[in-house]
Amino acid sequence: MTHDNKALQLERIVFFSDAVFAIAITLLIIEIKVPHLEHAASDRDFLIAVIKLIPNFVGYFFSFLVIGAYWLGHHKIYGQIVDWNYGLVWRNIFFLMAIAFMPFTTAFFSEYPMRLVPIVLYASAFSLAGILEILLFRYAVKTGMTDPNADPLELSHLGWRMSILPAAGIAAILIGFVKPVFAGFAFMLIPIAHRFIKSRFQKDSVITTSELTEQN
Amino acid sequence: MTHDNKALQLERIVFFSDAVFAIAITLLIIEIKVPHLEHAASDRDFLIAVIKLIPNFVGYFFSFLVIGAYWLGHHKIYGQIVDWNYGLVWRNIFFLMAIAFMPFTTAFFSEYPMRLVPIVLYASAFSLAGILEILLFRYAVKTGMTDPNADPLELSHLGWRMSILPAAGIAAILIGFVKPVFAGFAFMLIPIAHRFIKSRFQKDSVITTSELTEQN
Amino acid sequence: MTHDNKALQLERIVFFSDAVFAIAITLLIIEIKVPHLEHAASDRDFLIAVIKLIPNFVGYFFSFLVIGAYWLGHHKIYGQIVDWNYGLVWRNIFFLMAIAFMPFTTAFFSEYPMRLVPIVLYASAFSLAGILEILLFRYAVKTGMTDPNADPLELSHLGWRMSILPAAGIAAILIGFVKPVFAGFAFMLIPIAHRFIKSRFQKDSVITTSELTEQN
Amino acid sequence: MTHDNKALQLERIVFFSDAVFAIAITLLIIEIKVPHLEHAASDRDFLIAVIKLIPNFVGYFFSFLVIGAYWLGHHKIYGQIVDWNYGLVWRNIFFLMAIAFMPFTTAFFSEYPMRLVPIVLYASAFSLAGILEILLFRYAVKTGMTDPNADPLELSHLGWRMSILPAAGIAAILIGFVKPVFAGFAFMLIPIAHRFIKSRFQKDSVITTSELTEQN
Repeated sequence: MTHDNKALQLERIVFFSDAVFAIAITLLIIEIKVPHLEHAASDRDFLIAVIKLIPNFVGYFFSFLVIGAYWLGHHKIYGQIVDWNYGLVWRNIFFLMAIAFMPFTTAFFSEYPMRLVPIVLYASAFSLAGILEILLFRYAVKTGMTDPNADPLELSHLGWRMSILPAAGIAAILIGFVKPVFAGFAFMLIPIAHRFIKSRFQKDSVITTSELTEQN
Repeated sequence: MTHDNKALQLERIVFFSDAVFAIAITLLIIEIKVPHLEHAASDRDFLIAVIKLIPNFVGYFFSFLVIGAYWLGHHKIYGQIVDWNYGLVWRNIFFLMAIAFMPFTTAFFSEYPMRLVPIVLYASAFSLAGILEILLFRYAVKTGMTDPNADPLELSHLGWRMSILPAAGIAAILIGFVKPVFAGFAFMLIPIAHRFIKSRFQKDSVITTSELTEQN
Repeated sequence: MTHDNKALQLERIVFFSDAVFAIAITLLIIEIKVPHLEHAASDRDFLIAVIKLIPNFVGYFFSFLVIGAYWLGHHKIYGQIVDWNYGLVWRNIFFLMAIAFMPFTTAFFSEYPMRLVPIVLYASAFSLAGILEILLFRYAVKTGMTDPNADPLELSHLGWRMSILPAAGIAAILIGFVKPVFAGFAFMLIPIAHRFIKSRFQKDSVITTSELTEQN
Repeated sequence: MTHDNKALQLERIVFFSDAVFAIAITLLIIEIKVPHLEHAASDRDFLIAVIKLIPNFVGYFFSFLVIGAYWLGHHKIYGQIVDWNYGLVWRNIFFLMAIAFMPFTTAFFSEYPMRLVPIVLYASAFSLAGILEILLFRYAVKTGMTDPNADPLELSHLGWRMSILPAAGIAAILIGFVKPVFAGFAFMLIPIAHRFIKSRFQKDSVITTSELTEQN
């Protein structure tokens, strides 16, 4: 198999993944059903029907961001990958399986907000996707599928950032068992953790750059 | 990260967006449910059942054009973009979130045509998509993601044209509150505004060209 | 706008269309609902439930071929197109609108096979798609979007072949009004017409080739 | 038609196929319906409702792997294909038709696990997809669409590996008729057969390599 062919096949894996992400993210909407109202219903009745859908809208909003974030993570990983093998493809398929599961957990969780079982199921699928993404990334690094010229610091940064989402998911499960209503707060840790890791790596990056400057 | 890799990653963002647009536009049809008829139903009964679906067909037709128009707008924006960053990606995801929401507002609006709440919800999602598209475009221009060789007049023209859709949506909301039945007329302003802006820019374009000719 | 950018944007139009075709063709299956059976149901009951779905399976099979054929037609047209403008894009969107409508007409027709109204609706959407495809193609030829080196005979052949599907659809509507049960026979004309046009053009092609040989 | 155009059109066939695979694999989830519970339901009731969905989760998991495996097979085949004709396109469409059918057979089989008719229908669609894939591959090899530099041993290996899935499907049908509950065991043969064929070909490959070394 020529090198060119390899590149084309890698592109096809990325493409297939993108399509699955795009479908999963768009399918979120079909889980929100049009409310049934009688034709004599007043504008007030319509408004109440829409207000009752707010948990579904919140679920749509939140899961759209989540799948978007995982897509972006996938995007970052494959920005570093230059080769592939069947091990990588199967790890990719397992990761996509967790992503494509989210429209169901979102619908369940939106239908019964603040209930333990839907929260735990939602957070479990969420965490599982993150763990499978990390396994995919680690496999790629370990088997030398990543760009040999890739900055090791950038790879390490990527690895840390990828741990935030599943960590938040596991925290949500734990909080959920104590007090379901508060489980959502775990996700508020995501931007904080992101900022913390970023500042940590920017410091490292400065050191490395200065070290490099000294060496030259 | 090499320049080549950057280009490939930009392509992936465009690709992912295209897939979301394509799915949202095609999902419009699954909101039209097959009418239930008894097997003893006459051809006349069938015809009546189909006639009752006309608001759904109109909704399908109109929203297909709307999502098509937003896709074309996205197509035009990315025809000018040559670079990307995470700020662009997230603005893109928020824009897609509004697009993927439309199959729901279309179905709601088609099920209860001429009612205030569905009209306002439809026009709000419609306007929000337009506003998010403008924010995406302005961010790209401001952060220098657009082609440095792009014609500033063409960029300005693009900015004006993009304002038409959300402006029509906001007009529809305002009219809707006064008289829901007339809200649809707001959308008839779209082709008129388009023509007006076009003629305005063609005049400018002539001036600029003649100025350039003078300078040489 | 650079030439390269133009090519990339043309690719995006093709890509978006492909995605709509792919979604419309795959959505055909979700219109076939899993039969509801009691848990005490015998294997015989299951078999009967599956047999009752046969019209739905036939509809799936037939419409999969139809959308596949239209996709192939689109594939052939864009194999000749090297440029684009907004007129082309909008004609393309209208064509896709007719394609994406088919999962509905298929489901309606499969639910009530051999009934006049669903047959006429199905054949109308089918014919409309074909007519819009021809208009798209003629526009591309007329405005010089096709490859300047394209063989005129091949373009003419393509035009004739594209007329077969909508002609069969119109024949099905006409037959349907006389005797709904026989409407399906109109589609059997498709392979015959295909063969006839092919043989006609192969003869012409031989003549042209021999003429060319004489000229050299 | 230029060579470049041919390559682009081949890419479009692959792309369209990828999109159909991606949609079929993601649609699996929408067949799992959110359970209906009263708002007074206890956590225990929720847990029971989720446990009742386990056959649906297993169906999702298994069919995701199946469609993933067929996608990978398609990926391998087109990794060897460098040309195309209409015969190939139509064989490809028939193969995709069997793939896109799977969300239905999966939903039916998950709704009524361990029942003869759904098992046989599932295994039949599964086997049919495999047989159509083999026919596609054989046609490509026979008509010289494959890379002329392709290793014949690799092509032969690919042919053997592709026979495993439909063979397992046919075994599942046969076992199903005797004892539906045991039909699933047929699929356990897949990894065993894979390993066996792999070891068989690695031996051959070694021989061929040593023969080549002797000749030089």
